[in-house]
Amino acid sequence: MSTHDAVSVIAAKRDGHALSDSQIDWVVDAFTTGAVADEQMSALAMAIVLRGMDRHEIARWTQAMIASGERMDFGALRRDGRPLRTVDKHSTGGVGDKITLPLAPLVASYGLAVPQLSGRGLGHTGGTLDKLESIPGWRADVGAAEMMTQLAEVGAIVCAAGSGLAPADKRLYALRDVTATVESIPLIASSIMSKKIAEGTAALVLDVKVGSGAFMKSIDDARELAETMVALGADAGVETVALVTAMSTPLGLTAGNAVEVEESIEVLAGGGPGDVVELTLALAAEMLAAGGVDADPATNLANGRAMDSWRAMIAAQGGDPDAPLPRADHQETITAERDGVVSRLDAMGVGVAAWRLGAGRARQGEAVQHEAGVRWHARPGDRVRAGDLLFTLSTQTPERFGAAREALADAVTIVDDTGDGVSDLAGPLILDRVTVGT
Amino acid sequence: MSTHDAVSVIAAKRDGHALSDSQIDWVVDAFTTGAVADEQMSALAMAIVLRGMDRHEIARWTQAMIASGERMDFGALRRDGRPLRTVDKHSTGGVGDKITLPLAPLVASYGLAVPQLSGRGLGHTGGTLDKLESIPGWRADVGAAEMMTQLAEVGAIVCAAGSGLAPADKRLYALRDVTATVESIPLIASSIMSKKIAEGTAALVLDVKVGSGAFMKSIDDARELAETMVALGADAGVETVALVTAMSTPLGLTAGNAVEVEESIEVLAGGGPGDVVELTLALAAEMLAAGGVDADPATNLANGRAMDSWRAMIAAQGGDPDAPLPRADHQETITAERDGVVSRLDAMGVGVAAWRLGAGRARQGEAVQHEAGVRWHARPGDRVRAGDLLFTLSTQTPERFGAAREALADAVTIVDDTGDGVSDLAGPLILDRVTVGT
Repeated sequence: MSTHDAVSVIAAKRDGHALSDSQIDWVVDAFTTGAVADEQMSALAMAIVLRGMDRHEIARWTQAMIASGERMDFGALRRDGRPLRTVDKHSTGGVGDKITLPLAPLVASYGLAVPQLSGRGLGHTGGTLDKLESIPGWRADVGAAEMMTQLAEVGAIVCAAGSGLAPADKRLYALRDVTATVESIPLIASSIMSKKIAEGTAALVLDVKVGSGAFMKSIDDARELAETMVALGADAGVETVALVTAMSTPLGLTAGNAVEVEESIEVLAGGGPGDVVELTLALAAEMLAAGGVDADPATNLANGRAMDSWRAMIAAQGGDPDAPLPRADHQETITAERDGVVSRLDAMGVGVAAWRLGAGRARQGEAVQHEAGVRWHARPGDRVRAGDLLFTLSTQTPERFGAAREALADAVTIVDDTGDGVSDLAGPLILDRVTVGT
Repeated sequence: MSTHDAVSVIAAKRDGHALSDSQIDWVVDAFTTGAVADEQMSALAMAIVLRGMDRHEIARWTQAMIASGERMDFGALRRDGRPLRTVDKHSTGGVGDKITLPLAPLVASYGLAVPQLSGRGLGHTGGTLDKLESIPGWRADVGAAEMMTQLAEVGAIVCAAGSGLAPADKRLYALRDVTATVESIPLIASSIMSKKIAEGTAALVLDVKVGSGAFMKSIDDARELAETMVALGADAGVETVALVTAMSTPLGLTAGNAVEVEESIEVLAGGGPGDVVELTLALAAEMLAAGGVDADPATNLANGRAMDSWRAMIAAQGGDPDAPLPRADHQETITAERDGVVSRLDAMGVGVAAWRLGAGRARQGEAVQHEAGVRWHARPGDRVRAGDLLFTLSTQTPERFGAAREALADAVTIVDDTGDGVSDLAGPLILDRVTVGT
């Protein structure tokens, strides 16, 4: 017979106490088996949101989430008879964040294995799998054996995480989503890290977003989240480093599915928007360092090797890298109302517009429009004249244009061009770097 | 289409904001219809426990709970052609609290109508209906028409509350019970008052318990609960007064079902333990005043009229007031280990022991043993000698004695008899009186 019960565990956190190891182990296991009901877990989650968890509790909670399911092991990965080192990357989510697409094949092109187990989008940030599914033939669901083969042969894979990894976290996340208990650094950190640790990567690079388009609105919160996750990784023997990066302005010039794949291919071809290239190279440099490779990641963007990796990765999962991407049947534009300089482009407004055009889903399981999205033609620091193109909106369902325009109504600020300081309006992209001990 | 959704209402309270009238109306109604799920309501309840509600929110929440169901109306009550004034009493629950049993017929004996809609016990405090059901033939379920007749003819009734009164509160209470969200003054106050206001009484006297055997452990919390409920009553046009009374020591000399009926009959016969008599008379005085009756309630205990009312009340609900009460087949005793003075008798320990002997239930719907209970033979201030009887434990299931003894192991403190100050050890019973404006 158990020495714990749900009410006393919830009451302990409600009253501001740290949960003991055995309370955490018990409650996560009982939630997994159904002995602790959803309404009990959601009350506990709210108590955690408002009372917090200390580092030791977070570590134990993460371990319990991992223990609720399977763990993957890439220790047997070999290429040409030599062990292949795995390096993974995770972003906390931002608008226009297509970095995984050029990054995974770029890093793989240096001889590392990059197993990117990804999710689908919910709300205003897009999902990596939704983006790749706009490539004709490409499929996200890959079995474990096939995954090992692709990693050994191609080096990069982006695929759906199996439901066996941290199933308690999966159920808890669905519950948090409907109970206003997402916004908690302990719960966000343990949710991300339980999945990443269960995935069995040897090293991990985190991209922690901060700004109006991200979960974390303040740099202090973002740093705390980064530090918490880096510590959790280190505790679990995963070499972990985090970059804290700006997400008040959306990344690149596109938000959606096919449009983001297109932009990623531009980067792999040696072009693409400056901020997407900058962040891809910064994260690649961290991944190469973590994987023990001494090289400049810009090289393989310039010489085409990253593009070769991309084509191999897409083809291995049934995709045709040469097939044309789907285009929307309906487009509308938004133009500048005055001359001046763009001082602000709001990531949240852009993300919500893309979502409302059909690029994202409101509920889990809904289909998305691969053709839908937003392209913007000016970024903070750019000079514009009245009538210049600001946005192109694309969708298969033109009745969505109105709601998307509403989301963008206040998304751009244009100020008088005083002639100086214009280039500063973009602001720095990479704000901090967090490692164990920082 | 509604302008509210569950996540934004929960998030508002999570972030410490006051809920608007329309948010409260919406969320209670949506919970009643099932559009807001249990896991969402429990997250909101936890946010309310930790963030609180202001007086205006509590009043609106209470109104919304009332609006979720039916309201009773005693306005048509007549005796001898004259309107009959209704006065109700509610206790927040304590160990050995059988006060309703002598109180209702006593107050009715002065020509007032006392509709006591009561509940069944859960946990360490007993339920009034469970106690009365130990009387052979007595039944708790009475229809609305029968209730009016009994009130008009006998004046007193103790019966089960219909499920139509504040059904949202009923569902919420069941949820709070399993999610550690009971301990909230706003939620306790609105739960009690929504039921009492829906019951349609003209006046209400509250007995707010404070101490180790009560929900409220501190006098400040008890006063705040009393003030909150008195204000809610006044807002709803119910003349409400509260006594704050001590519940660290159990009331009287018995806790259980039949044993508490027996003790109540002693009080109605003009005897009984001093504290039970004192509290019965204090509450009766408040009820008579609220009902506009100028009389000393001790009179009808002494002259037998309260006992006549009791017999009529029991008989009207099928009970035989002359039938012998059930007695337990198994008894064990606990004796004093040393000479001295009892300085402490813990209500919680006694309540848990009675519960474990079978007098209470662990889950709703379980049967209780009418025969089971605890009788104590010494109270704080009483001198005892080693070997003197302290407790008699009764049950139909002797395997329960061990767990009951455990609950009592630390329930009594005996100190050296220094000869003075002994009578002070009992402490005052009535600690405060709260009316509108205090």
